[in-house]
Amino acid sequence: MSYFEHIPKIGYEGPQSDNPLAFHHYDRTKRVLGKTLEEHLRIAVCYWHTFVWPGIDIFGQGTFHRPWQQPGDAMERAHQKADAAFEFFSKLGTPYYTFHDTDVAPEGDSLKAYSENFARISDYLARKQQDTGVKLLWGTANLFSHPRYAGGAATSPDPEVFAFAATQVRHALDATHRLGGDNYVLWGGREGYDTLLNTDLVREREQFARFLSMVVEHSHKIGFKGTLLIEPKPQEPTKHQYDYDVAAVHGFLTQYGLQNDIRVNIEANHATLAGHSFHHEIATAFALGIFGSVDANRGDPQNGWDTDQFPNSVEELTLAFYEILKHGGFTTGGMNFDSKVRRQSVDAEDLFYGHIGAIDNLALAVERAAVLVENDRLEQFKRQRYAGWETEFGRKILSGGYSLSTLAGDALDRGLNPQHVSGQQERLESVVNQAIYGLR
Amino acid sequence: MSYFEHIPKIGYEGPQSDNPLAFHHYDRTKRVLGKTLEEHLRIAVCYWHTFVWPGIDIFGQGTFHRPWQQPGDAMERAHQKADAAFEFFSKLGTPYYTFHDTDVAPEGDSLKAYSENFARISDYLARKQQDTGVKLLWGTANLFSHPRYAGGAATSPDPEVFAFAATQVRHALDATHRLGGDNYVLWGGREGYDTLLNTDLVREREQFARFLSMVVEHSHKIGFKGTLLIEPKPQEPTKHQYDYDVAAVHGFLTQYGLQNDIRVNIEANHATLAGHSFHHEIATAFALGIFGSVDANRGDPQNGWDTDQFPNSVEELTLAFYEILKHGGFTTGGMNFDSKVRRQSVDAEDLFYGHIGAIDNLALAVERAAVLVENDRLEQFKRQRYAGWETEFGRKILSGGYSLSTLAGDALDRGLNPQHVSGQQERLESVVNQAIYGLR
Amino acid sequence: MSYFEHIPKIGYEGPQSDNPLAFHHYDRTKRVLGKTLEEHLRIAVCYWHTFVWPGIDIFGQGTFHRPWQQPGDAMERAHQKADAAFEFFSKLGTPYYTFHDTDVAPEGDSLKAYSENFARISDYLARKQQDTGVKLLWGTANLFSHPRYAGGAATSPDPEVFAFAATQVRHALDATHRLGGDNYVLWGGREGYDTLLNTDLVREREQFARFLSMVVEHSHKIGFKGTLLIEPKPQEPTKHQYDYDVAAVHGFLTQYGLQNDIRVNIEANHATLAGHSFHHEIATAFALGIFGSVDANRGDPQNGWDTDQFPNSVEELTLAFYEILKHGGFTTGGMNFDSKVRRQSVDAEDLFYGHIGAIDNLALAVERAAVLVENDRLEQFKRQRYAGWETEFGRKILSGGYSLSTLAGDALDRGLNPQHVSGQQERLESVVNQAIYGLR
Amino acid sequence: MSYFEHIPKIGYEGPQSDNPLAFHHYDRTKRVLGKTLEEHLRIAVCYWHTFVWPGIDIFGQGTFHRPWQQPGDAMERAHQKADAAFEFFSKLGTPYYTFHDTDVAPEGDSLKAYSENFARISDYLARKQQDTGVKLLWGTANLFSHPRYAGGAATSPDPEVFAFAATQVRHALDATHRLGGDNYVLWGGREGYDTLLNTDLVREREQFARFLSMVVEHSHKIGFKGTLLIEPKPQEPTKHQYDYDVAAVHGFLTQYGLQNDIRVNIEANHATLAGHSFHHEIATAFALGIFGSVDANRGDPQNGWDTDQFPNSVEELTLAFYEILKHGGFTTGGMNFDSKVRRQSVDAEDLFYGHIGAIDNLALAVERAAVLVENDRLEQFKRQRYAGWETEFGRKILSGGYSLSTLAGDALDRGLNPQHVSGQQERLESVVNQAIYGLR
Repeated sequence: MSYFEHIPKIGYEGPQSDNPLAFHHYDRTKRVLGKTLEEHLRIAVCYWHTFVWPGIDIFGQGTFHRPWQQPGDAMERAHQKADAAFEFFSKLGTPYYTFHDTDVAPEGDSLKAYSENFARISDYLARKQQDTGVKLLWGTANLFSHPRYAGGAATSPDPEVFAFAATQVRHALDATHRLGGDNYVLWGGREGYDTLLNTDLVREREQFARFLSMVVEHSHKIGFKGTLLIEPKPQEPTKHQYDYDVAAVHGFLTQYGLQNDIRVNIEANHATLAGHSFHHEIATAFALGIFGSVDANRGDPQNGWDTDQFPNSVEELTLAFYEILKHGGFTTGGMNFDSKVRRQSVDAEDLFYGHIGAIDNLALAVERAAVLVENDRLEQFKRQRYAGWETEFGRKILSGGYSLSTLAGDALDRGLNPQHVSGQQERLESVVNQAIYGLR
Repeated sequence: MSYFEHIPKIGYEGPQSDNPLAFHHYDRTKRVLGKTLEEHLRIAVCYWHTFVWPGIDIFGQGTFHRPWQQPGDAMERAHQKADAAFEFFSKLGTPYYTFHDTDVAPEGDSLKAYSENFARISDYLARKQQDTGVKLLWGTANLFSHPRYAGGAATSPDPEVFAFAATQVRHALDATHRLGGDNYVLWGGREGYDTLLNTDLVREREQFARFLSMVVEHSHKIGFKGTLLIEPKPQEPTKHQYDYDVAAVHGFLTQYGLQNDIRVNIEANHATLAGHSFHHEIATAFALGIFGSVDANRGDPQNGWDTDQFPNSVEELTLAFYEILKHGGFTTGGMNFDSKVRRQSVDAEDLFYGHIGAIDNLALAVERAAVLVENDRLEQFKRQRYAGWETEFGRKILSGGYSLSTLAGDALDRGLNPQHVSGQQERLESVVNQAIYGLR
Repeated sequence: MSYFEHIPKIGYEGPQSDNPLAFHHYDRTKRVLGKTLEEHLRIAVCYWHTFVWPGIDIFGQGTFHRPWQQPGDAMERAHQKADAAFEFFSKLGTPYYTFHDTDVAPEGDSLKAYSENFARISDYLARKQQDTGVKLLWGTANLFSHPRYAGGAATSPDPEVFAFAATQVRHALDATHRLGGDNYVLWGGREGYDTLLNTDLVREREQFARFLSMVVEHSHKIGFKGTLLIEPKPQEPTKHQYDYDVAAVHGFLTQYGLQNDIRVNIEANHATLAGHSFHHEIATAFALGIFGSVDANRGDPQNGWDTDQFPNSVEELTLAFYEILKHGGFTTGGMNFDSKVRRQSVDAEDLFYGHIGAIDNLALAVERAAVLVENDRLEQFKRQRYAGWETEFGRKILSGGYSLSTLAGDALDRGLNPQHVSGQQERLESVVNQAIYGLR
Repeated sequence: MSYFEHIPKIGYEGPQSDNPLAFHHYDRTKRVLGKTLEEHLRIAVCYWHTFVWPGIDIFGQGTFHRPWQQPGDAMERAHQKADAAFEFFSKLGTPYYTFHDTDVAPEGDSLKAYSENFARISDYLARKQQDTGVKLLWGTANLFSHPRYAGGAATSPDPEVFAFAATQVRHALDATHRLGGDNYVLWGGREGYDTLLNTDLVREREQFARFLSMVVEHSHKIGFKGTLLIEPKPQEPTKHQYDYDVAAVHGFLTQYGLQNDIRVNIEANHATLAGHSFHHEIATAFALGIFGSVDANRGDPQNGWDTDQFPNSVEELTLAFYEILKHGGFTTGGMNFDSKVRRQSVDAEDLFYGHIGAIDNLALAVERAAVLVENDRLEQFKRQRYAGWETEFGRKILSGGYSLSTLAGDALDRGLNPQHVSGQQERLESVVNQAIYGLR
């Protein structure tokens, strides 16, 4: 049975095509900087927004009426959902997918039921992967939707909730390992607080560190070769989430000695909610040595919640890919579409339109970023700008050759009077736009 | 000569007084939780906003016409400014003050002139301190106003700018030490970037760490007993400042092993610009063990820049003091008014109105917070909320008694099904308001 | 049958009481400025947040398990919900309630079923009102939750959706009239756009104006004596809502000649989402002559969505009531609690804690505002500040006695050189805080 | 004498050129939709940011050292500034400029001196215009920088300040008329409030309306054929400006019957500070019939103040031009660069880099928008989406053929059950990006 029977396999037709069910820029086999676009992008479609979310928002009921979301036997629906998902992946031609444990299998009414349901569906997913060639970019566990997690999971005031969460992660990590997942993601949706008045920050941080350490140790024990990733987000659903941004995660990991075991999965919309540009969070993750993977989407610059829209700014994505390509591209990471169609976009076609448009934007961004990287005028400018630090004087400062007083003495003796040199921001912005718009 | 001759010494007249040039709540000798209000608050008046800023904003010229801001011999004006400042401190009756090196002395046109001017004025300040009994809460160096710092100070692309900044800090720290300052503050006004396109994040972090290490070492060498403080701020004047918030500073310090040598000076307005409540930043600093001092002011919740208004929410300040009192109060820190009168408030009286109102608000906040702390229903609720973590099961998890798989096994065996327990946020909010408004 | 049997009737016990199930400041019979607190506040409890919302958020399932929310016969549940609601109103002792049509009665599967269900429940509500003495502050229709309204109601691209919405409003307005409601509210939850790319702004404004005109005309025809109210909100669930803020609503009403027929219902959280203070929106509504009623709640200053928390800042509420009292208090309007307990506050007690705390805050605010109004030093200052406009020169300008050129000629002739006079913001802020904290 | 002697006349060299001092996309003679790019864009360079601002910010001194900004005789410097400005305009090849009265001429120390200085410089500007062919897009008066305007200009509490402002506007409007300006702009920089506590909203609105009416009347009297424009801005320097956004201005104009005499000058950065997209403000201005002109710049999405950066998002500009072209393009309006180089960009070249890059972006945007307009798939989709309103039923509703009750009756009789139809936002977003990136 087909869930998208009137939708053809999506092919590449070039920029002139009028066909909205075709790629205009994503020619997956096209080579850029020695790799194909498919290899660069490592695109994943997510289960939750595309196959689970029914089109509700906080003011409205679900607007979608997907066959696999109808009432009925939960396990049967889960199989149908998997069929629909893999049909979608295959028609779209994207190489990866991602899921939460409870996206793919019903929770049931007990831990036992949960583990059995999840095991059966995991087997089914393995079969679907084999049949289609679609691979798992990462798995994760949903530790935020069930009422038991209202006060947090690892940071819950109740150790039994911690234990419940540990059980889910254990299963989800094991399943990810079995399904050949390249990464395992931890998003602490409610690891934070709604009010400081009832919250013990010290205690909750300790709990969270313990939890992460257990996950790291388990991943080693089972021989998981993928990367463990934390996904920063500043708030929502909580008032404040501990994994606020890349810098906060880095500080936490460093405090608990986990900075070599866990990296970050950066979401564009989470970056902007935290008051940072997407570019900033990616550049910062590289600077701190914890870059892992990306959740590709966008927020609305005028709205203050996680709109999870499909990325549509090639300009913004080009800067993100400039960083990624400059650092050698993804290793285990990839571009996961943590994106959802709007609640008004109720047709199955809309699921395709959303992904196709976004994939074309990513393809454009990789190509434009490659232009920037190949003849890296930004890097050249930086090298010249910081040249003073490569002189003997600069090196001596950095290597500890001066104390504050000897340096001050030296400065006074020499009567230093350094002059500011132009940062040329405007010219560099034009360099970027020329890479984006000058390409022919 | 008097600069405020028509202003009397400000006395305490009680809440019923109509006199705007009197305290209504700040009875400095009143004892709360075993200390006087003066000892709790450790109030400081700052030099820059109150005696240096001429009432300009980015769209307008200065509106103030203070005698000591008139054209004339720079050193003479600096002495007049010191006279005016100490007259103000004395009339207001506040025990501390704070300054930047270039607030008190003219920069001159060379490093030599700078150091000579600053030395002479430091001597004068020492004399004024002795005459009035006013003490120095902290000193700092202005590393952001001069054009040489347009691209940063410690993080400048030019090592000579780094050296110039080091010279200023060396002098400012020495002067702070000589003047008996309780702390030394580093606010990295331009330690950040305007655009990532011309910025080497890795390099600039290294420079910054080197700079801080030199400052720490120097403070030890000269026997400075005070506390070194970093002041987080997310942005402005830069697009992004590295010391974004308490968590970012903590991560940075931890990465470079400086977390025991440097603490934070938290500014209310900087907290809110970073997307955090003032309460959050203070509670986080305590949780991370780096709380130092406070810049008391407020931002405008509807404006996105540093308005540095006088604090006027007793409700907000009470929560801040709840954290401070619970942790034993200030040690070397205090409440520095990094606050300025509005550009429209051009009269000398306005300087007094601003400080008097704010001091009364702080006094109220300490008293209300003391009520909260004395019979700490918030703490009692938390203890009961987290009680599970004091059971054998809870302790065993935290102490490493379980691996992920043994804990998951245990949870499955026991068929755990924990139920969420109310967080009672609304009741706790009423507990706070009862402490504020129920007091008689 | 009782739904809150372990909860006593909430009484006034004074500020010293420790009882969380008692009022500490709201003595409903206390007279302030010639009216009782009950008469001043005209408090209403809303149906939707308190009896309908199951504790879901966009990342989580419902956490509440109210008896009337269990599966079962929809009309039976609706009657139980009404019983629970009126038991709650009575125990709390608040004089008013508010509802959407679909809060109180099931929609059914056709317009016919809707109208019959709603009619039956309206009768039941009438009976409950009579039994308890609780009155209806306002009614409204839910034109945003059902999928048919995904693209708007009055501004839908489909005229049948407009007609469906008109049918609901017709029934809800008729029911409000029959139940003696003092106002009828229109919140255009989806009257706006998600993207400009598919939206015809001109057309949608015309539709909206037509809709409102039909409502105005109908209200006259049925002899509704209450006030029609629009509730401004800038966004959420839409990207942009046409009724963005008070100024936008005023402009719309003025353009279509509706400014004498419709006023505004101002919600605190909507004000702050629009970039305004609550105080601003209330003051603006009075200045524009369209103030109607208030939705009392608060947002989270650090989060960008409608958190609808119970109001807990007496400081903020005092400024709101200063405006309201200065303008003679509410006429048909009142304080409706468009507030919900946090998702973590799952107990029935929490519903009471939330309302009790907020009511105490409102009572405090009225009392403090009355102090401000009685000896109105703000007004006195303003009178003196604008005194120049009461001179002959000022009056001549305003009355059209000068053209631009004659006024410029006059200014040149007289060599005008006006000096700025202090706005004394800091002193006035202290005046407000003295009214709040000096009261004994 | 040349101020930019090492800078050549900027020519068009095409997208492949590496020359940063050349246009890559702006071929002014290229025809698009029947007009040249020059005619479409009507670009103006502003005096204030480019020739007056010395590179200060609120935390730092000026970094620029332009020859015409050095100390010296004020009128001599004003002539040099004009020479530099017109040399710049000529080398850049832009057809228009804009100014404030006090940008071009020194204020002097009296109204008399002001008017004489301004008259002399106006004559000089007339000569420069004639010599170079550069024209005036609009003039305006600076009613916000001088201390007298600290409390507002037209909305000042002092009628003499109103009179002073009227004098400036009279002179600036007369000069604009004499210099052949196409528009006259009013930006009410301090027409708003810093605190509601000292502000009489009703009174200030009346003053403002009177002021505007006098300006309108004067413009008619002198036969000014250009357009009068208000420039909305939500805040900064004030806490709240009355001309908050396009909707607020429209409401104000409509209330006072000025909606046919005054239109809006929309600034991108002001739009985003007000919580709107640039696209929104332009589309709204067209929908309300008050679109006039544009201040082209951009804000920083992560900073909350007016950064006035050069526009560099072709994506954003394309949507703006889609609206403008669809409505027939500019009449008297144009694209004025209310943009400034960063404080770090201290070289004369940077002034060129900033403008050149931005002009190229505008050229690209016009071309891409023309693609969208020529085969307007957005419009086609809208037409089909709203088709129901062109049926008899739809027309009857809009033309008043139904009352609320007859329409409700009809809906009930027919058992209406309309189904939501997809809004296809994702597909339409791809249509836009195809126009931007598919162009060959």
